[in-house]
Amino acid sequence: MIPTSHPRYKSLITRERMATCARSGVVAMEGLTAHGRGEAFDYLIGEVTTPGAAEAERIAAALFLTAKHPVISVNGNTAALCADAIAELQAVSGAIVEVNLFHRTEERILKITAILTKAGCTVIDGPVARCIPLEHDRGLCHIDGIATADVILVPLEDGDRAAALVSMNKTVIAIDLNPLSRTTQTATLPVIDEVTRAIPAITRELKGLDRKTAETLVRDIDGKKYVRDAIMTIKGRLIDVLD
Amino acid sequence: MIPTSHPRYKSLITRERMATCARSGVVAMEGLTAHGRGEAFDYLIGEVTTPGAAEAERIAAALFLTAKHPVISVNGNTAALCADAIAELQAVSGAIVEVNLFHRTEERILKITAILTKAGCTVIDGPVARCIPLEHDRGLCHIDGIATADVILVPLEDGDRAAALVSMNKTVIAIDLNPLSRTTQTATLPVIDEVTRAIPAITRELKGLDRKTAETLVRDIDGKKYVRDAIMTIKGRLIDVLD
Repeated sequence: MIPTSHPRYKSLITRERMATCARSGVVAMEGLTAHGRGEAFDYLIGEVTTPGAAEAERIAAALFLTAKHPVISVNGNTAALCADAIAELQAVSGAIVEVNLFHRTEERILKITAILTKAGCTVIDGPVARCIPLEHDRGLCHIDGIATADVILVPLEDGDRAAALVSMNKTVIAIDLNPLSRTTQTATLPVIDEVTRAIPAITRELKGLDRKTAETLVRDIDGKKYVRDAIMTIKGRLIDVLD
Repeated sequence: MIPTSHPRYKSLITRERMATCARSGVVAMEGLTAHGRGEAFDYLIGEVTTPGAAEAERIAAALFLTAKHPVISVNGNTAALCADAIAELQAVSGAIVEVNLFHRTEERILKITAILTKAGCTVIDGPVARCIPLEHDRGLCHIDGIATADVILVPLEDGDRAAALVSMNKTVIAIDLNPLSRTTQTATLPVIDEVTRAIPAITRELKGLDRKTAETLVRDIDGKKYVRDAIMTIKGRLIDVLD
């Protein structure tokens, strides 16, 4: 048992939860390693939502509000970490929730769908096809979901997939803690924040946003700005450690 | 299958190997997350042995050469990543190899011992006792191993344990990629390098070292210097990305 007084309590509890989800097959083994990479970058960023990330979350909310056909793409790690927050964002945004996996098996899709449904999500069902320009099962998505979406939220997405979605002229909102990853480098809007902080923040922003403000916010999005902001934050913190 | 031409080939193959070892129980689920954290820091450091790390590896070799009773403490991640390199270091240094686990079960000890033995290590057997000032099984170690060692190499060690070993007046050589971790902050000598680069480097240095040079090298070890070096390297690389 991890004592609640432990300075790393939240991180340790989350790690334990991820390990449990890996044992049950919801999280891929590779997903655990990816979670570790995220932990390292979150630590470097200071385990808080930076002002730059908060701004990106507000713009993400504006993209949801102005989208015609928004989709939230959910993988094993995202479902394990924040199924409840996804359900809330769906309720407020009306977005389609699609389970879309890098390590795709029918069994994992069913398990992740069950977690999301239990949390209150409506998960898209129906025909899938290889619409994403990627090889094998990695190109599969739902015809009425990602294939025809204009705005897609991809939390914790692989870099190849984020780039492939951008190449389909989708507006891609990524949530990823690594400011150097291909995902943050290629997404239309990289939200460089921890997923359990980022998704509730987007939902909160969405609740308070009117259409006119949203339309202004989505004009001329400069994704690179958020990458620079995150790198500057890390640099500043490293200098503090040296002092 | 991962193509050998993939820019991240080595990292992906290693990740796959770690996942396989997690499925077989050699690597703890928490060990996979820890591996991911290491990957992130290695990426930030540039996936090379920095001049500072190379210097630390030379001093680590000197510590082995001048030690009376050196021990290499091996956990699941280390065994999965570099059992061969541990066997070579043991052959050259004459150090005792002890399996010592944070997530300790008899089953995992047997599996890790089997991997090490197959690679050519002689693994210490015999009585264990709670000699490390830590609660529960985390305090267990071999009487003729860690308990009575003067110099201990702990690759990929937990911060609490590294600190506990230092509190026992042991000379602790840590191998850890995170310059901000408690392990690197508390070890006598932190080697901030990837374990499959670091251990062969220590072995190479040991082969070319004479006792007199070694005695000079181990005087006044400044562990903090290597922490500063690694942080400066990361900072420099982040600035390069911004340019």
